[in-house]
Amino acid sequence: MRQTQLLTKTRKDAPSDEVSKNAELLIKAGYIHKEMAGVYSMLPLGLRVINKIEGVIRDEMNKAGGQELEMATLQDKNLWNKTERWSDEKVDNWFKTSLKSGTELGLGFTHEEPLTQLMGDYISSYKDLPVYPYQFQTKFRNELRAKSGIMRGREFLMKDLYSFSKDEIEHNKFYEKMKDVYMNVFKRTGVGENTYVTFAPGGSFSEFSHEFQLLSNVGEDTIYVDKKNKIAINKEVYTDEILEKLDLKKEDMEEERSIEVGNIFSLGTKFSDALNLKYKDKEGNENTVIMGSYGIGLGRLMGAIVENLSDESGIIWPTEVSPYHIHLVTLGTDSKEVVEFADHMYDSFKERGIEVLYDDRDTRPGEKLADSDLMGISTRIVVGKKTIESGEVEVVDRKTKKVRYVSESDIMSGDFLNIE
Amino acid sequence: MRQTQLLTKTRKDAPSDEVSKNAELLIKAGYIHKEMAGVYSMLPLGLRVINKIEGVIRDEMNKAGGQELEMATLQDKNLWNKTERWSDEKVDNWFKTSLKSGTELGLGFTHEEPLTQLMGDYISSYKDLPVYPYQFQTKFRNELRAKSGIMRGREFLMKDLYSFSKDEIEHNKFYEKMKDVYMNVFKRTGVGENTYVTFAPGGSFSEFSHEFQLLSNVGEDTIYVDKKNKIAINKEVYTDEILEKLDLKKEDMEEERSIEVGNIFSLGTKFSDALNLKYKDKEGNENTVIMGSYGIGLGRLMGAIVENLSDESGIIWPTEVSPYHIHLVTLGTDSKEVVEFADHMYDSFKERGIEVLYDDRDTRPGEKLADSDLMGISTRIVVGKKTIESGEVEVVDRKTKKVRYVSESDIMSGDFLNIE
Repeated sequence: MRQTQLLTKTRKDAPSDEVSKNAELLIKAGYIHKEMAGVYSMLPLGLRVINKIEGVIRDEMNKAGGQELEMATLQDKNLWNKTERWSDEKVDNWFKTSLKSGTELGLGFTHEEPLTQLMGDYISSYKDLPVYPYQFQTKFRNELRAKSGIMRGREFLMKDLYSFSKDEIEHNKFYEKMKDVYMNVFKRTGVGENTYVTFAPGGSFSEFSHEFQLLSNVGEDTIYVDKKNKIAINKEVYTDEILEKLDLKKEDMEEERSIEVGNIFSLGTKFSDALNLKYKDKEGNENTVIMGSYGIGLGRLMGAIVENLSDESGIIWPTEVSPYHIHLVTLGTDSKEVVEFADHMYDSFKERGIEVLYDDRDTRPGEKLADSDLMGISTRIVVGKKTIESGEVEVVDRKTKKVRYVSESDIMSGDFLNIE
Repeated sequence: MRQTQLLTKTRKDAPSDEVSKNAELLIKAGYIHKEMAGVYSMLPLGLRVINKIEGVIRDEMNKAGGQELEMATLQDKNLWNKTERWSDEKVDNWFKTSLKSGTELGLGFTHEEPLTQLMGDYISSYKDLPVYPYQFQTKFRNELRAKSGIMRGREFLMKDLYSFSKDEIEHNKFYEKMKDVYMNVFKRTGVGENTYVTFAPGGSFSEFSHEFQLLSNVGEDTIYVDKKNKIAINKEVYTDEILEKLDLKKEDMEEERSIEVGNIFSLGTKFSDALNLKYKDKEGNENTVIMGSYGIGLGRLMGAIVENLSDESGIIWPTEVSPYHIHLVTLGTDSKEVVEFADHMYDSFKERGIEVLYDDRDTRPGEKLADSDLMGISTRIVVGKKTIESGEVEVVDRKTKKVRYVSESDIMSGDFLNIE
């Protein structure tokens, strides 16, 4: 994509009511647009990042045996009454609406109820289990306050996977596996190093759930971390008794602020009981299906990446979620040779399927480099008048700011990039 | 995907309140799940079809210069008041909801208002035009009646592109181009032959808009078609005066029922005036941006394909939108040789990136073939005991029912398939 064609530009300021660093940077760099508090549109660059994150998660979910589907937003009151989750007293973040006939509807904030009901059409025998449907679907949550940018949206894209298992053993095996699957997602999206599997409150059916907490000063959660053993406990369940049970020592635990970038939860038979989801085992006996839920908010993760990896110059995208592989920047567009060299390089990248944003603007060098830093594409290639003399382009790693000079032929062989 | 692992199964019946053929077939074949009237979830097979349709449209929109983004669902009342489209008297299919604070919000049924406002951040000069943002986004429409299956949803995925042009000439050039682009979409998704560019009512700024009408007995629209000249007129503007203006003869026009699978609309300055979207031309004069909108409902198109191409045995997917390239079906799973042969073929397909649904169920042949017909994957390969004797598999074209016998090596060379 040529930057002169790109429909966004960088901006000097974010809206004055924007208080979070993630949204501020993403707005200034042209990734998102604020519609209202907690509601953001994804601009072309932002959508590319979301799609990359989605691609990583999809890959990991498919490898874990997930099957992708997509549920509806509009929710039937009668269904949610069966699990006693319709009332605003029980669930305080419903958005509700109604049909012309007056029938009340909800906007899904999660999908246990409709999916459990749906699976009733397809689960009848032990042969149908286990099964792991998941989706990327827009959730609506009527948050009282929405001041964390895209990390706490009133409307946001979420990956939610649900497990349907024959028994506790089968459930626990998958649940444990998902801890690793989730850590893979966070590693691949660049925040694995500072993300901790965290013990958190469970429900009626399990003592704990598990959160994936990314250390961050702007996080809304407080956790206690044993950094050596890579384990953490949410403040809500941080007691001496629990420490003892988990064989952790109080003196090893550091208090930290953190962002919950994912969570997994054993649901037991809470929903399958209420919605009568049963299966016949080999002996013909009826059993209740055991369920679990596994969520990652994509906007939350995107915002958390920005909060964690940005520097004073702007955003830093990890390679696997960078909107483009390369930011090709020309300095000195008054030189015909520079433009021709860069045009040729741009065309060659495109032909080879390398994603490249080409800053072909006739703008002064300082502004172009500042914009490039702000936008944070993982690798920058600078073509300037020196390039024409030396035949070498400048390759800058956005994260380390390390500069290398690479010949055109080496660039074209592609080995300098870690792109699959 | 092995069919024994697939989370759906075919069903004998659709829900008794389902009156449309498209939803009935799609439910029975395991593509969609009905949540309530006009609200359907996409099951894994259905999501694959939607993704294929989305892929075709994205490809065509990108080739036409479109830039993909994704707007939000929740809509700000103040913004829509500016164009006088907030009131339920003006727009009768709003779904509305509200924040905890009481602030009213709408669920977007279209996106002219927020996008025009957004583009105000990025359009200031003639250099910023033309620009063609588009999205695949879920629309909400509070339809009084929703009896056409997935062809008229209360919640549905739509591709909406909006054009922002400097003047009428630039606008008209793009508008005309989009007629061809749209016809390409309908050709590639298998309904081009029976789809007609149709003159329809315009607005304050143009005499006509254009619909893409697919002939169908279950269509909600009535059009008059000149089949020789491949042109049609919507009943709403079908007058002697218009016929004369378009140089069409009444005796050539046939009355037909049809499904509107797409539409394009010249908006003039309706939204740019109301929301003050202006640009400076080369001379520094301020001008109002000229807009157009271009929509395709993906569920509508998916439903229309089913209505048009199905036969008495079930669905028939055109190759480019078939959920899988191949339905590999074994007959005689009691034979170890059959299973080994098919397993090997399945693995080979997957290795080569050919999308294959493998019916590895231990079910009687008649049921497997009936299910395969119902599901409608474009090409079926049958492996049975005869295959082991002859070395040839049966290749069945779902549409023509034409059968060919092809050797394993020819199958593996891949030339028998028209897959890019």
